[in-house]
Amino acid sequence: MSEKADILIVGGSAAGIAAAISSRRYYPESKIVVIRKNEKVMIPCGIPYIFGTLGEIDKNLIPDVVLTGKNIDLIIDEVTTIDKENKNVETLQGKKFEYDKLILATGSLPLEPPIPGCDLENAYVVKKEAPYLKKMQDSLNQAHDVVIIGGGFIGLEFADECKKKGIKNVTVVELLPKCLLLACDEEICNRVENKLKEKHIEIINNRRVQAITGNGKVQAVELDNGDKIKADVVIAGIGVNPNVELAEKTGLKCDTKMGVKVDEFMRTSHKDIFAVGDCSEKKCHLSGLPSNIRLASIATSEARTAAGNLFGLRRRNTCAIGIFCTMIGDLGVGSAGMTERTARDMGLDIVTGEFVKANRHPGCIPGAEEIGVKLIFERDTMVLIGGQVFGGTSVGEIINFIGALLQHKTRAYEIATFQVGTHPMLTASPIAYQIVNAAENAMTSNHS
Amino acid sequence: MSEKADILIVGGSAAGIAAAISSRRYYPESKIVVIRKNEKVMIPCGIPYIFGTLGEIDKNLIPDVVLTGKNIDLIIDEVTTIDKENKNVETLQGKKFEYDKLILATGSLPLEPPIPGCDLENAYVVKKEAPYLKKMQDSLNQAHDVVIIGGGFIGLEFADECKKKGIKNVTVVELLPKCLLLACDEEICNRVENKLKEKHIEIINNRRVQAITGNGKVQAVELDNGDKIKADVVIAGIGVNPNVELAEKTGLKCDTKMGVKVDEFMRTSHKDIFAVGDCSEKKCHLSGLPSNIRLASIATSEARTAAGNLFGLRRRNTCAIGIFCTMIGDLGVGSAGMTERTARDMGLDIVTGEFVKANRHPGCIPGAEEIGVKLIFERDTMVLIGGQVFGGTSVGEIINFIGALLQHKTRAYEIATFQVGTHPMLTASPIAYQIVNAAENAMTSNHS
Repeated sequence: MSEKADILIVGGSAAGIAAAISSRRYYPESKIVVIRKNEKVMIPCGIPYIFGTLGEIDKNLIPDVVLTGKNIDLIIDEVTTIDKENKNVETLQGKKFEYDKLILATGSLPLEPPIPGCDLENAYVVKKEAPYLKKMQDSLNQAHDVVIIGGGFIGLEFADECKKKGIKNVTVVELLPKCLLLACDEEICNRVENKLKEKHIEIINNRRVQAITGNGKVQAVELDNGDKIKADVVIAGIGVNPNVELAEKTGLKCDTKMGVKVDEFMRTSHKDIFAVGDCSEKKCHLSGLPSNIRLASIATSEARTAAGNLFGLRRRNTCAIGIFCTMIGDLGVGSAGMTERTARDMGLDIVTGEFVKANRHPGCIPGAEEIGVKLIFERDTMVLIGGQVFGGTSVGEIINFIGALLQHKTRAYEIATFQVGTHPMLTASPIAYQIVNAAENAMTSNHS
Repeated sequence: MSEKADILIVGGSAAGIAAAISSRRYYPESKIVVIRKNEKVMIPCGIPYIFGTLGEIDKNLIPDVVLTGKNIDLIIDEVTTIDKENKNVETLQGKKFEYDKLILATGSLPLEPPIPGCDLENAYVVKKEAPYLKKMQDSLNQAHDVVIIGGGFIGLEFADECKKKGIKNVTVVELLPKCLLLACDEEICNRVENKLKEKHIEIINNRRVQAITGNGKVQAVELDNGDKIKADVVIAGIGVNPNVELAEKTGLKCDTKMGVKVDEFMRTSHKDIFAVGDCSEKKCHLSGLPSNIRLASIATSEARTAAGNLFGLRRRNTCAIGIFCTMIGDLGVGSAGMTERTARDMGLDIVTGEFVKANRHPGCIPGAEEIGVKLIFERDTMVLIGGQVFGGTSVGEIINFIGALLQHKTRAYEIATFQVGTHPMLTASPIAYQIVNAAENAMTSNHS
């Protein structure tokens, strides 16, 4: 006997959960089933924080009640086959579920560096599975020398947390001239690197790791200039690949590197199957080009779009915008859309505007910190195509404000006369509000 | 001999300064002169914080270097007459300035309650003048019983600061059923009132002060039900009137209650004179109706609009949106646009959506606080017309994010699929981001 779900969701991380919650809001009476492989679900961007700030894997879980509390059935099992013509799935545990609509949210898999030694004990990539992370935690508990391959957000967060944990030597090896250079322009990367150095984290730029070496266990990494760095744990945070295995097996159109093919309503090549999150292909909101960016912010947006479209098309996917933020020590950094560097490399004619000021007014108010905003506009249209921010904890919301302006293709003159609420204890002054002033600086520099 | 300014700005508070800075950006070669009455300029919204947090008036000044550092001439003097036909002004100190374009930024004057006793010693309104505030500070330094008339933002901030200062009995008297009720809906007002009560601030709602009594000095206030409250200092924060005296004398079209008449380019009835900030008349962005809202956020936006238009029209005023935020104790509160109550009172058919969640994820991360968002949409169009937020210090930037969505007349379905950057240490999770979920809740409640 098989169970029948109106909506069946395969995968239970950020995209799967957001799809389920939105589906419940839209279809209060439907039977909604989520099937996921892992016993426990990690908060994906919380993983680095397990090792220092949180101290325990179990503190970084998405509680099942976000589903079960909304009358969504949660099954711990693995879907092995989808029969798309007869609209049913089979699982590893031999169960069968029929469905009316299916949402694939199978996520991504961490890339392993294409070098020897990745199979040594204490060489890790960043998987989202609790037992794997437990092993990693045990290794880090005894580590003195940690090498992190990749100076992107995850790599730097791991480095910061390893230091918080008290690990003596932490080294980040980054292929590009600066850490974070895919997300931020050089001046902001410099601020981040300075903060890492303050915390005695070693940064090696412009270098590729050629091998992880050791006798059974990790002992060192070897760089492309022949240098060797002592290591008892290596963590590679160099990106992910979409997990398209099940989709391919089902006969859905896929690109192994870019993901499951979807239309702007998030439908796959089969009309009753949608694909959302890290497993689906993306286009860049700003260039229209295929993009391999993978973020929970994009995943959950796609999930909500798919949920709205299940039984009648209502929402269009707005394509992927990279909106990131992080905290390195007490320095918050955020980026949205294109950097100045990416834009120029693409050949865009651009204008930038910057503004730095305290996040309180007067600046002598207790708790005041400097916040800086940089905005990037296309010269002819003065449409916003990117923004970056550094400062204290409010950068998380400031970058979302900038993200909203990007999604609206807002023009500099609109931003320059935006009305913004300000308060001595909460923001810069109305005269010196960073986003507004950065826009006006960009406008008037273009004008003269 | 008279001096000649290309741009002459009368008034040097938020609007005047923003107008001067924007003018300098637009016209790098112009001679720009600001004439202001006061020796020192207060940060207007910082005034309550002088008395507790800052401790000194001189810590709450806008430094003159924001002007002089940009090669803007600053004159401490008072413009007494404007000859608009011959384009010159005369000052109290007998100086004369010719101008090409003039910007009036004469601000507002605090309303005095229309009751007996306002002339008693230790009865204050909230003026922006340093010597007056010094006197107020001296009175508060010896006060045991302070009564504040008006439970709006300024009144409550004063109450909070008086407590921080250690004043024993602080009472707020508010005419409406709740404090902050013009800016927030009742459930948020309740949170604020509870926070005030936690701090042992007495709140008396639904009551009008009938008289301030005392023998030369304040001794009590009398309420409309006959109750008397002991007081050695009374502070009234009940609103402001535009300061149109100079504009009226100049023969510009004015409404004494609503301000100097301006077109959408911020021009007065004379083409070479602009008026911005608290002294100029306003229309509500959402209803199109005349509005007597007066905020620095509106003032600086108008100032930037006027500056852009001085020598050729380029920018239109987008009309006033109330975007407020404040901090009462450790509770941040923000509001933008219409409240549910105002909208219903106006006869609008609306839908609301709410969402409350921690501002970190997982919620057990150190420093996590609850943040709640309420959004208000017109039912038929699902256009956003208002939003409110409560929580920690990030409410200041969250309300600006909501303010930007308002200014763009954003629809619920767009907000529900917005991509928002999230980070464990900085925001709610992508699944539980408050603004997005509040929008989806509003949509789906309208849908079913």
